[in-house]
Amino acid sequence: MNVGFLGLGLIGASLACALRDRPEINKLIGYGHRSSTVDAALSLGIIDQAVEQPEYLLDCCDLVVIATPTLLAQQQMVQLVGIAESMESPPILTDVASVKGNLWRAVESMGLPSWPQYVVLGHPIAGSERSGVHAAKADLFVDHRVILTPHEGSSATAVQSVAKLWQWAGAEVISMPVELHDKVLAATSHLPHMLAYSLVDTLAQSDLSVDIFRYAAGGFRDFTRIASSDPVMWRDIALANKDELLRAIDSFSNGLSDLRAAIASSDGERMMTIFKRAKNSRDTFLVKQNAKKD
Amino acid sequence: MNVGFLGLGLIGASLACALRDRPEINKLIGYGHRSSTVDAALSLGIIDQAVEQPEYLLDCCDLVVIATPTLLAQQQMVQLVGIAESMESPPILTDVASVKGNLWRAVESMGLPSWPQYVVLGHPIAGSERSGVHAAKADLFVDHRVILTPHEGSSATAVQSVAKLWQWAGAEVISMPVELHDKVLAATSHLPHMLAYSLVDTLAQSDLSVDIFRYAAGGFRDFTRIASSDPVMWRDIALANKDELLRAIDSFSNGLSDLRAAIASSDGERMMTIFKRAKNSRDTFLVKQNAKKD
Repeated sequence: MNVGFLGLGLIGASLACALRDRPEINKLIGYGHRSSTVDAALSLGIIDQAVEQPEYLLDCCDLVVIATPTLLAQQQMVQLVGIAESMESPPILTDVASVKGNLWRAVESMGLPSWPQYVVLGHPIAGSERSGVHAAKADLFVDHRVILTPHEGSSATAVQSVAKLWQWAGAEVISMPVELHDKVLAATSHLPHMLAYSLVDTLAQSDLSVDIFRYAAGGFRDFTRIASSDPVMWRDIALANKDELLRAIDSFSNGLSDLRAAIASSDGERMMTIFKRAKNSRDTFLVKQNAKKD
Repeated sequence: MNVGFLGLGLIGASLACALRDRPEINKLIGYGHRSSTVDAALSLGIIDQAVEQPEYLLDCCDLVVIATPTLLAQQQMVQLVGIAESMESPPILTDVASVKGNLWRAVESMGLPSWPQYVVLGHPIAGSERSGVHAAKADLFVDHRVILTPHEGSSATAVQSVAKLWQWAGAEVISMPVELHDKVLAATSHLPHMLAYSLVDTLAQSDLSVDIFRYAAGGFRDFTRIASSDPVMWRDIALANKDELLRAIDSFSNGLSDLRAAIASSDGERMMTIFKRAKNSRDTFLVKQNAKKD
């Protein structure tokens, strides 16, 4: 099969690298907005051939992966579906965006008679604070989860093909309802990134910022790494998953207020309850994860 | 010289391991609250000998390191200074606690004629989410910073001896005023730990906690690791550095409110300003760090 990549950033290029040696693959074909990216992808052997326009991928591919930032992915999905609807046998279309509800609603709002059965939305839970084609790694998805949020109108064949693609890349594929995906990811990924950005930005503006960065201790170092992720990507995610993210921020802020009150009143017992509950949740989770691996 | 360790947890035991093969060291002597810890430290060869009471370390050591949680360290420092004051040549006393102001004030409140010149407060910026004697590592302090906050009444010899001890363990030793230490650490270490505990606790209590822990993504994983640190240690730190920590929480909460407002009003430009400023601060800091290494 021929697989097309609309977008040759970290995720698209890494998936191409991961599929490179699979016997099922005939050609890997890419489109990149910047010619320097396309040139790099060709010269590094990440793709076999490039196309001049995104929609050309529809003609030469059996499956097209939209691998651009969330809001652009939404536009491009609508654009490609618009063209694919008039094709006799359109390729399977999937994406890798971190929010799924906005793409889902955008396709539903196109006014088609039914959900295009060749469209299967997906999200690999993998990444790096590095971005771009040069950060691509063939093993980026190995032992990582990919969440698919198939519509009841998606064909079983399309869902299977997208699942297989990720399995070939070493990932574990699971499915969940689109609403659950956006709620869970708001909590586990989008909120932590907002907290990290906010913390690093606040400290960077403090009078003590020079000393703070110079003596950055363990806790802060992890936050700064997260806060060095791609700003455009995270702006798009925050805009696309706004409602769930605001709910998550509010829930976090309530919890932090409780902890602040415990500290302000020197309530050591209350602090211990919070700290122990957090530690136990994490340690229990790790035990389960390890048990699963054994 | 003989070095004593009051407390044989991660930090005390790791320092003993690091000093084990130094030619300057005669004996490493330890006191542990739990006999199982002392037995382990002896049988692992981390210490050469154990004493039955903390104050016995004063008689047989040239330098005693108090390596217990912050509030206990404060009590023990006062106790040991109380005894050492009546000794003809007391050993040098230092500690490893994460907050320095409370120890400083506790010693000043003892009503001594002047600061005991053999007391030098210190804080190694190193650690792990693991704790206890079995987590000890000889290289825990290699290339890490140790901050000393010497009082003007501390003798130059005492300061030098404590500095040398840490340099033997591979650390870089720096000095700063006690107030600056507690402000900087509130921002870079104490606040991030509170945020991590609060986030993990809040999510653990959510209706979706099972899914949240199951699909924990990159950002959240780092937070859960931090939140798995020792609850007693962090309760003590929060109590001991309460004022600076509350200021840091409030400053963070203001920043988060700004970001929340930008998200709520879909103000992508404002978000980009915050995200880019955070990313640039971190990236600039990394460039400087790397330049220093070259």
